[in-house]
Amino acid sequence: MELDDCCNETKACLDNGNKNPYPDDGPEREVSSQECGAYVRSQLASMCARHTLARRLPITQWLPRYTWSLFLHDLMAGLTVGMTAIPQGIAYAVVAGLAPQYGLYSGFMGSFVYVFFGSTKDITVGPTAIMALMTQSYVLNFGPDFAVLLTFLSGCIIAVLGLLQLGFVVDFISMPVTVGFTSAAAITIASSQLKGLFGLKGRSDKFLDSIINFFEHIREVKGWDSALGVSTIVALLLMQRLSVLRVKGNPPGQTISKFRRIFGNTMWMVSLARNAIVVFFGVGLAYVLYINGHEPFSLTGKIEEGFPPFGLPPFNTVFKNQTYNFVEMTSALGSSLIAIPLISILESIAIAKAFSKGKAVDATQEMIALGLGNMAGSFVRSMPVTGSFTRTAVNNASGVRTPAGGIFTGLLVMGALGLLTSTFYFIPKATLSGLIMTAMFFMIDYHVVSLLWRTKRIDLIPLGATFLCCLLIGLEYGMIVGIAVNLLILLYHSARPPVDMKWVVVNGCNVLLVTPAQSLAFPSAEYVREVIVADCNQHRDESQQSAVVIDGANLFNIDSTVAKVVKLLSEDLKMLEVPIFLWRWPQQVTYTLLGIDPKMKPFFRNGPTLDLILTALENRVRHESEVLTEEDTGASVMKANGSQHIP
Amino acid sequence: MELDDCCNETKACLDNGNKNPYPDDGPEREVSSQECGAYVRSQLASMCARHTLARRLPITQWLPRYTWSLFLHDLMAGLTVGMTAIPQGIAYAVVAGLAPQYGLYSGFMGSFVYVFFGSTKDITVGPTAIMALMTQSYVLNFGPDFAVLLTFLSGCIIAVLGLLQLGFVVDFISMPVTVGFTSAAAITIASSQLKGLFGLKGRSDKFLDSIINFFEHIREVKGWDSALGVSTIVALLLMQRLSVLRVKGNPPGQTISKFRRIFGNTMWMVSLARNAIVVFFGVGLAYVLYINGHEPFSLTGKIEEGFPPFGLPPFNTVFKNQTYNFVEMTSALGSSLIAIPLISILESIAIAKAFSKGKAVDATQEMIALGLGNMAGSFVRSMPVTGSFTRTAVNNASGVRTPAGGIFTGLLVMGALGLLTSTFYFIPKATLSGLIMTAMFFMIDYHVVSLLWRTKRIDLIPLGATFLCCLLIGLEYGMIVGIAVNLLILLYHSARPPVDMKWVVVNGCNVLLVTPAQSLAFPSAEYVREVIVADCNQHRDESQQSAVVIDGANLFNIDSTVAKVVKLLSEDLKMLEVPIFLWRWPQQVTYTLLGIDPKMKPFFRNGPTLDLILTALENRVRHESEVLTEEDTGASVMKANGSQHIP
Repeated sequence: MELDDCCNETKACLDNGNKNPYPDDGPEREVSSQECGAYVRSQLASMCARHTLARRLPITQWLPRYTWSLFLHDLMAGLTVGMTAIPQGIAYAVVAGLAPQYGLYSGFMGSFVYVFFGSTKDITVGPTAIMALMTQSYVLNFGPDFAVLLTFLSGCIIAVLGLLQLGFVVDFISMPVTVGFTSAAAITIASSQLKGLFGLKGRSDKFLDSIINFFEHIREVKGWDSALGVSTIVALLLMQRLSVLRVKGNPPGQTISKFRRIFGNTMWMVSLARNAIVVFFGVGLAYVLYINGHEPFSLTGKIEEGFPPFGLPPFNTVFKNQTYNFVEMTSALGSSLIAIPLISILESIAIAKAFSKGKAVDATQEMIALGLGNMAGSFVRSMPVTGSFTRTAVNNASGVRTPAGGIFTGLLVMGALGLLTSTFYFIPKATLSGLIMTAMFFMIDYHVVSLLWRTKRIDLIPLGATFLCCLLIGLEYGMIVGIAVNLLILLYHSARPPVDMKWVVVNGCNVLLVTPAQSLAFPSAEYVREVIVADCNQHRDESQQSAVVIDGANLFNIDSTVAKVVKLLSEDLKMLEVPIFLWRWPQQVTYTLLGIDPKMKPFFRNGPTLDLILTALENRVRHESEVLTEEDTGASVMKANGSQHIP
Repeated sequence: MELDDCCNETKACLDNGNKNPYPDDGPEREVSSQECGAYVRSQLASMCARHTLARRLPITQWLPRYTWSLFLHDLMAGLTVGMTAIPQGIAYAVVAGLAPQYGLYSGFMGSFVYVFFGSTKDITVGPTAIMALMTQSYVLNFGPDFAVLLTFLSGCIIAVLGLLQLGFVVDFISMPVTVGFTSAAAITIASSQLKGLFGLKGRSDKFLDSIINFFEHIREVKGWDSALGVSTIVALLLMQRLSVLRVKGNPPGQTISKFRRIFGNTMWMVSLARNAIVVFFGVGLAYVLYINGHEPFSLTGKIEEGFPPFGLPPFNTVFKNQTYNFVEMTSALGSSLIAIPLISILESIAIAKAFSKGKAVDATQEMIALGLGNMAGSFVRSMPVTGSFTRTAVNNASGVRTPAGGIFTGLLVMGALGLLTSTFYFIPKATLSGLIMTAMFFMIDYHVVSLLWRTKRIDLIPLGATFLCCLLIGLEYGMIVGIAVNLLILLYHSARPPVDMKWVVVNGCNVLLVTPAQSLAFPSAEYVREVIVADCNQHRDESQQSAVVIDGANLFNIDSTVAKVVKLLSEDLKMLEVPIFLWRWPQQVTYTLLGIDPKMKPFFRNGPTLDLILTALENRVRHESEVLTEEDTGASVMKANGSQHIP
């Protein structure tokens, strides 16, 4: 927009015949073209500066136009999201193996930073189940300081990737890999909550461990915990269904009573706040029973109260009497420093695109916002955060208007930290486990499997590989295996491209018409040469003249390997006394081929139809075969060898 | 051929109206269709058996037709190759850090095995410079037993890859990578011979070490060695030029005297045998001087005489008082067990194709022959062998007719082992170094660099990466880096495919016509979505009706990720009130897309021209935009954000 304005102004300046472009500068006067150029340059510089500022600090775009109406909408949406963010944060802190308050530590800084740097209004940055799961093993093995350092370093990496415009790497994570990964993560998380749901003991951070642990301790299942956990799940599922009662707009041919409308909206609010409701109910129940001298549930227990300490992220730490310096911590984090930033970017950009309503997403800006959010979060002991799909959806559905909604979410979370941490003692573990497991049910995508089975079976291979490796080996490895498998399939396609081959009779000459369906790259070069030579050997009728025509209409690009192999192919066919023609090859491809061997020039043909190409064939062939017979010595004995070879 | 015969016979049997197909079986009689079927099946089975035998043991094809004339040709060629194989074998053994006789140990078994299993007449299997260089570090660090075990294991791997039809993996080694690898190997080998050429001491197995070693010891250069080495190189280069004197055929308008012809052919033979000549001369000179009490040259020195011990390859060994068992040996060989088989296959298949004279190369059979040759060789202490380009060229030029030529080459090498090993004592090291360096000059391919610079600059990246890494880190790593870089370029192309985008006005409607130039795969999906959305945001004129048409004429295949992203794109564009049409999408691509979302059906169009597609646009659009306005809430404030983002 602004750049367009600038262009128009420039144009006007030049159109003006170098009239004075400064309208306030007295009456119209001639200006030198130099003066005009200086004006345009100064205008351009200020435009560019403003444009960059607007792009890199999007708050400068919407804040000046902020209104009370927008404020009210943002306030409502922000508080609604906060009602989800608090219980989810607590639950995901538990998934990460951290104390519950870490979920709230992680819940406000990301939101605040996003208000300034975020380029979409809906995204809500905070802890997510997958981030929590990927942090877990470090927390269990090395303590919470590792999670905080991981947040800081991930933030740096995300921001750097964003500034270097390297966000495109997530394009290499395909939909089947994402689905496999997400489903495996959901199952791993759900299984890790089995012990909480049934009041069992033991550590379980992997799928198989969790299942084995559950069955080993199945005799120790606690009735009260189980009852509370299962009722939490049932309550959450029921409350989720309530959202359908909301009445949106005016359905045609129906009058809706005011009561029906209010009831619907209330039920919808209950549905949105269902996580907070079950936690509130669980805490209340535990507290009432506690006051009356009962403690039937496993409770969260004593935790640190109030706000987190503000300070640098821990660059060295002591855990279980072992001291770790920065280098040791970083090398312990290892592959997570790649995996966590990648997954963060993937989640966040995917959500941004889903809610961008047709706008192009500024991936660079989103990555900068996310990176800074993590970096800032690590100063208040946050675990790694990213865009949360569920909370972003709540935000959008609650009618948020600008990123300012995040301020209110963050403030609500901080309020909970200031006032409520002492009540966290009473949160029953079974309630949190039930809450987490319910959320995980909706992350598993059964549907895609049957859909892929029907439409694109080969995509089940990367999905299955990702899913199984994530579940059995670990999330990072599973993702890497999945991407690798997917790229192998892609490379296989470029090594074995579709090549249409048919024999046609043109002007009494048998012509093998070869039409590659797409550009050829080096892995396919030898394959194409082999199938053509094999086909010529098998189907050529020696009593009749034959020719090979390669139709280059779909060739947009070839590399030097393909060019060289085409040259070798022409030599192969010369031995078979079959002339080759390169028909309709585009300019740049012709150029590449002639660069490798200028002697290929006579092979090119550009006529509109096949018969025109072959008009001069007869004479040319007779001449060629005379030359050939001399060189083609002693192939008779070996003739039968290899001729049956169809690659 | 044979299968064709069988088909004809089957056809005749059925055409015959079930007449008796056994002509020797008395007069014509009716046979049941069952009898006919049984006959055809038995014929087919025997055909198949014969066909498989002929393919897997090609000697069964040419031996029955062998003649005296063929024998004489093969004998001459075989002996000529032997004259090259003996000095080259000795030299390459030195490159590998082995005693010279190992070069001859490696020179006969591969040839013998190839006679039975080889499918081309020209290929000569034996030690090569690159195989020797890749074996070298194991010999220097762990002793010769490791080289022999490497031969055995490489042979097993090559044969298994052949039987599993996995030879296609070498398709992923492109021409630029091969050139970079070969040139770096040649330079590494040549630099490793500097010390031999100038009579210096010190160990040097890497390029930099060799150069540093040379300059550190430059004051110790020995005059006699240097003189002999340099004269060897000069003599070899001069003798190589002699081959142009050969007179082939009868040039028109010239009479060629018998003397000229004999002289030309003698000079050509001298040129072919030049390696043997310089070695013979060097030995003679050293011997004569030795007898007269002079020993001015560094000599090869004492070596084991006679034939190698025949026995199992060493599955455990002792070197420098350290015992290694099979597992330790195998793990020490490590990545070589992949690299050496791959390079062997690459060299051998490339040579087979170069000399196949238009026949399709049976890569599987070649790999079986090569694998068995290595396995058999390891029983006579061979180092890894593969097809040798120079000796195969000599074989071809000397007029070999069948693989039987290998017998005579092998016998000549064995003869040298039996009779001449005692004379190896006198081979001056400088002669061997000169011989090796001269051979390496011709392996460096300067030409390709300037050629790629002119025609396909991007291919210089994998070439340069391979060359530098091979030279500075090591051959295996260099090759891996080169392949990886090349695949990244390939993946980049599939992530950023050429997509033609232009705005056209059809029926008063602004149409963005998007034409992908090739099939789309998952890494490109989000990119295509982004450029289309960004273009719509930037160039759409809100006062006029716009539409996006994606022309699928070049789309042959899409995966589920692309299908899903097309669906998301249609949702993006719905928000922009721009309808999308999928024009001329092929059947199978349409099927994939409808599998992901059946609701995409109304978007497809198959009319021959654009205006036909858009005829019904107006009404449809008006209806759609009514539905849209309700959903498209609150995007006004955020409108400017991200719209300038062009990925």
